[in-house]
Amino acid sequence: MAKRRFKAQIVGATGYGGLGMTEQLVRHPEIEISALLAKTDTGRPISDFFPHLRGFCDRVVEEALDERVGQDADVVVFCTPDRVSMQHAPRLLKEGVRVLDFSGDFRFRSPEEYERYAQRQPSVKGQPHLCPELLPESGYGVPGLFRCEVAGAALVGNPGCFSVAIELGLAPALRAGIVDPRSIVVDGKAGVSGAGKKPAPAYHFPERVENVTPYRVAAHQHAVEAAQHLGRYAGSRVGLTFVPHLVPISRGIECTIYAQLLEPTRAERVHELYCEAYASEPFVRVLPLGVSPGPKAVHGSNLCDVSTFVDFENDRLVVVSSIDNLLKGQAGMALQNLNLMLGIEETCGLERIPVYP
Amino acid sequence: MAKRRFKAQIVGATGYGGLGMTEQLVRHPEIEISALLAKTDTGRPISDFFPHLRGFCDRVVEEALDERVGQDADVVVFCTPDRVSMQHAPRLLKEGVRVLDFSGDFRFRSPEEYERYAQRQPSVKGQPHLCPELLPESGYGVPGLFRCEVAGAALVGNPGCFSVAIELGLAPALRAGIVDPRSIVVDGKAGVSGAGKKPAPAYHFPERVENVTPYRVAAHQHAVEAAQHLGRYAGSRVGLTFVPHLVPISRGIECTIYAQLLEPTRAERVHELYCEAYASEPFVRVLPLGVSPGPKAVHGSNLCDVSTFVDFENDRLVVVSSIDNLLKGQAGMALQNLNLMLGIEETCGLERIPVYP
Amino acid sequence: MAKRRFKAQIVGATGYGGLGMTEQLVRHPEIEISALLAKTDTGRPISDFFPHLRGFCDRVVEEALDERVGQDADVVVFCTPDRVSMQHAPRLLKEGVRVLDFSGDFRFRSPEEYERYAQRQPSVKGQPHLCPELLPESGYGVPGLFRCEVAGAALVGNPGCFSVAIELGLAPALRAGIVDPRSIVVDGKAGVSGAGKKPAPAYHFPERVENVTPYRVAAHQHAVEAAQHLGRYAGSRVGLTFVPHLVPISRGIECTIYAQLLEPTRAERVHELYCEAYASEPFVRVLPLGVSPGPKAVHGSNLCDVSTFVDFENDRLVVVSSIDNLLKGQAGMALQNLNLMLGIEETCGLERIPVYP
Amino acid sequence: MAKRRFKAQIVGATGYGGLGMTEQLVRHPEIEISALLAKTDTGRPISDFFPHLRGFCDRVVEEALDERVGQDADVVVFCTPDRVSMQHAPRLLKEGVRVLDFSGDFRFRSPEEYERYAQRQPSVKGQPHLCPELLPESGYGVPGLFRCEVAGAALVGNPGCFSVAIELGLAPALRAGIVDPRSIVVDGKAGVSGAGKKPAPAYHFPERVENVTPYRVAAHQHAVEAAQHLGRYAGSRVGLTFVPHLVPISRGIECTIYAQLLEPTRAERVHELYCEAYASEPFVRVLPLGVSPGPKAVHGSNLCDVSTFVDFENDRLVVVSSIDNLLKGQAGMALQNLNLMLGIEETCGLERIPVYP
Repeated sequence: MAKRRFKAQIVGATGYGGLGMTEQLVRHPEIEISALLAKTDTGRPISDFFPHLRGFCDRVVEEALDERVGQDADVVVFCTPDRVSMQHAPRLLKEGVRVLDFSGDFRFRSPEEYERYAQRQPSVKGQPHLCPELLPESGYGVPGLFRCEVAGAALVGNPGCFSVAIELGLAPALRAGIVDPRSIVVDGKAGVSGAGKKPAPAYHFPERVENVTPYRVAAHQHAVEAAQHLGRYAGSRVGLTFVPHLVPISRGIECTIYAQLLEPTRAERVHELYCEAYASEPFVRVLPLGVSPGPKAVHGSNLCDVSTFVDFENDRLVVVSSIDNLLKGQAGMALQNLNLMLGIEETCGLERIPVYP
Repeated sequence: MAKRRFKAQIVGATGYGGLGMTEQLVRHPEIEISALLAKTDTGRPISDFFPHLRGFCDRVVEEALDERVGQDADVVVFCTPDRVSMQHAPRLLKEGVRVLDFSGDFRFRSPEEYERYAQRQPSVKGQPHLCPELLPESGYGVPGLFRCEVAGAALVGNPGCFSVAIELGLAPALRAGIVDPRSIVVDGKAGVSGAGKKPAPAYHFPERVENVTPYRVAAHQHAVEAAQHLGRYAGSRVGLTFVPHLVPISRGIECTIYAQLLEPTRAERVHELYCEAYASEPFVRVLPLGVSPGPKAVHGSNLCDVSTFVDFENDRLVVVSSIDNLLKGQAGMALQNLNLMLGIEETCGLERIPVYP
Repeated sequence: MAKRRFKAQIVGATGYGGLGMTEQLVRHPEIEISALLAKTDTGRPISDFFPHLRGFCDRVVEEALDERVGQDADVVVFCTPDRVSMQHAPRLLKEGVRVLDFSGDFRFRSPEEYERYAQRQPSVKGQPHLCPELLPESGYGVPGLFRCEVAGAALVGNPGCFSVAIELGLAPALRAGIVDPRSIVVDGKAGVSGAGKKPAPAYHFPERVENVTPYRVAAHQHAVEAAQHLGRYAGSRVGLTFVPHLVPISRGIECTIYAQLLEPTRAERVHELYCEAYASEPFVRVLPLGVSPGPKAVHGSNLCDVSTFVDFENDRLVVVSSIDNLLKGQAGMALQNLNLMLGIEETCGLERIPVYP
Repeated sequence: MAKRRFKAQIVGATGYGGLGMTEQLVRHPEIEISALLAKTDTGRPISDFFPHLRGFCDRVVEEALDERVGQDADVVVFCTPDRVSMQHAPRLLKEGVRVLDFSGDFRFRSPEEYERYAQRQPSVKGQPHLCPELLPESGYGVPGLFRCEVAGAALVGNPGCFSVAIELGLAPALRAGIVDPRSIVVDGKAGVSGAGKKPAPAYHFPERVENVTPYRVAAHQHAVEAAQHLGRYAGSRVGLTFVPHLVPISRGIECTIYAQLLEPTRAERVHELYCEAYASEPFVRVLPLGVSPGPKAVHGSNLCDVSTFVDFENDRLVVVSSIDNLLKGQAGMALQNLNLMLGIEETCGLERIPVYP
């Protein structure tokens, strides 16, 4: 008898996040899309909003009415802004429906941690969590660091895109205790798709061409997220200065991470340490010494590429981590988490070779 | 008992064409790569030249010695410049090895046709074909027009990238006889990857940014190829003026095709005609009237999108056709041809959703 | 005694058109800016909206109140959408204030011509001109074709950006009578800045990258404008099919123009004809045969580059014309017109070398 | 009687550096170009190599024969690779001809400093300076820091592009002693034109699109240059980790600079300090707090924009400095230096408004 496929609802289907989730699931052998829901842009096939989907997915987008959310679904994936999923999660979990959320709502395991994040996230500033009692049971969806929190979990917070690159880039060094956890500087470069599908002056094509623009300097919410999770992973309080920059690419994140080495360390030693740390991670590639091709080498895939360097004159570690912000930084990671939540092979549906050039 | 997989050799593996072919075959269920061959860049894993392949294909590139070509292979795919495959094809075919060629060597079915092409192709100008006797049995690899030439064939010429876009855009109108076959203007825009992996001043990043440059104005070899094949497909002598332009994108071709309508025709009538013509084509999408999203909607896929318009004031048909030049215009089409040559399901391995945005 | 400088008001100062006009006048030796006016974005220095202007122009933007328009000004430059300047022009002209308008309001010399344009321009569709009596006395601001209409004029309509490229590209051939005026096809490629400063989905960075998109296929208002003015310049009814495309550049227009030659003509003959036609034009460069570097070679300048080709197999003329859409296609042309209107040396303030690379 | 104009020879005229110098001088009121010299690409007008120059400068490029260098010139500008100008400088200076050099040959005031640089610069590694006796009298061409070394000097080393951005960004903080000079991290992003006009795989358009690539990680020669000059300017030994990145823009450099504050400091205090430091610098703009538009706001100009931030949680100073790498980072700075060397008004010929958007 054919195995029953899991049913997934995608809420916020017409944004870039929802699009990514749709693409990941359209051909998944064990999960099927049972509904595409959205606030606006409803009543027409998803391929009207995203013409590249024509023939692959022409399902009509339905209005995200409260009662519709969770109906006929084993799992609901919220590809929505902050404070949407927290309005639905308590009911859904009670009904036995799993929840995977793309926003910051369930990325933290205590109300205090959430609060520190919320102070930095402009859209939620000063507002308390609506269901703090759920936080301790939520899993933080970075399997490379917290796989056991995600496997089989009913509630998972999908991580922020920059947080993924920062955490995977720093975790081995912090855990090994070779760098000063208060000395960290992260310089991030991100494609414009990270800002979503909604046009705004900063994302207007003529303004971005031939430009590199820092934003939320030392004030980005993903820095708080990364610092907190790295702290609990490595068992030390982490202080990091993070400056993200918009660069004229559509997708891709590159983070260059600087940290003071506690003692002089050879580049080969650091490299070994990273190779060991990620030896069995399916989607992290520690590149050979001296190789750092940038996010183009992971474009269209769920991979994170990590390169390590040592500035021996200044005893500083330099790590470069690269991801596709819409996949490893969002929908690809989400499918990896979904697979783990549902007991499916972790890599299922995620084997795409990067698109190059 | 498990079915034996076909073995394919890729010659010219370290160029963009060879890369594309490698990517198409790495996970193909019925074809396996038996060797990657190249003239230069040998002795190291292919993933040293293309870091995104690390973990997907780390096979060492071997030197393309004459005697190695065809060894342990059911089919040899030549991803090489003009006049390479014609040096090997007679022997290989005699040995029962199939040949698929990316260059212009076997795109024509008679020496006369080849000669007209060769006059336009700067790299081969004035040189005669080395095995003209093979031309009548070669298939022209555009299944949408000439599927029966390709299915089961031992020798197939993979088409030029622009030719694909022009032919699929014009074929239905020409066959239906609604346009003057001597009135055709094709304005092409192409990504820089179409020029291959070798750097040159015209492809230097600073020179391409913020620019649009016509080249080989009314002198491009793909125009001859398209005119000849459209002529034999539609049964009329075709005269077309073709101007390709480099635009600052990496991959993608958009052709805007203009043709004089023989009599006033409604846009809906033309649209129906195209929909019917391509109703059963697996990789051609005739878009709804008024929709023309450009090559980004087929980026990373084997699709050709076709949009039709009518300038009713001037009784002119306008067709827009968009492809990914490295897939539908090269390696994707090649796999479609390979599948047909080997009796495999035509769409096998070609189901990727376009990457967007 | 020092010569009095002319005073110019710029209305619509915070759009790209107003920005361009401001930049042209900031250092003009004979014209000074007497006010920057706008509907929104007022009360702050213009350099708050355009940080690159800091130190060059920090004048506060004032609200464009009706009574303020024309005050303390010899000329008002309207960098505003259609139907704004026509509300002010009658009064201003009566008061002896000259008017230069960037919209379509005064580009036509008869109500009939305006009406044909207005049917194509979505924003004004079906609305009658408010002061048709002024049209016969307005000059059409393309000095290369209609210098005498502009010199000393009190009211001038600055041309559409595509119209400039089309008209300068075609005028010599049409006037010489070497091409069929009904056979013309124009394929235009334009930078996104042509759509203005206001963000919209089509101009969102991630949507434009790696794409080429046709729009208003055979329905763009600049085609009507160009056809009408070319018709009166050349004395023949002109029919042209025009398809503009958005390409991923910020500024620049390239038009590839195709026209049937009435008889076989050598490329050298056409080239001579163009060289003669533009021998004394200060801002048109007819390039050597075979050279066509694209709009990057005029980036940041008031130049129009014209290249001519002949497809001798199909007896078709191909002309490539390239401009900077924000300068030759807008603010540079406007200053050239202003200079002529005010009796200043035509080239004054327009001598910038293009920025390359 | 008309003032005699200075005569300048440009050696290496057909590279991007020589092009920039040519553009700066074509219309300079007090300096004229007396010859364009180059090793290759000679015998044809410079506008054949750079079509945008047509009509502005059509001077024929002459072969850079040893005896021709310095002939009929008051100053020779070497826009050449390392180790060219040091072969000519001793003779030229003896003949009373001034020398301005774009390479690293004369950027250092002692053989020891030069040697430290030369160890990092791959093209000169291990080779001794040919005329070390000239180093103490050479001026380092960053007027914002060392104006008195340049004014009236006979020999000036034009600075490295990154060095300019780093030095102008850090100098005030280091001199004021508010940061730890050993704690500095500089993350640089550069346009591809910085690598010059010669094509290479890393600058091939398809490889750069959608990518961000670090290179010479903690090993770039400009870091040595900046550290040494900042050290002597601020009177303290400076240790900095510098990682440059290629981003997909043609021109522009953005450096994000991180330094540990020695004590908690308010953002306003740092800002005041920078405003005071650059109050009379003609080409440095200290932007208002919170404003950091990136290199696009200085594109095509000789400006350096500086923004200051404080990460108060980690007591870290963040400075963002932006320049046009081909102007402030090369030819614009060169003209500023030339003006100072020749006693011309420092800003002469450098007043261009940035090109935007």
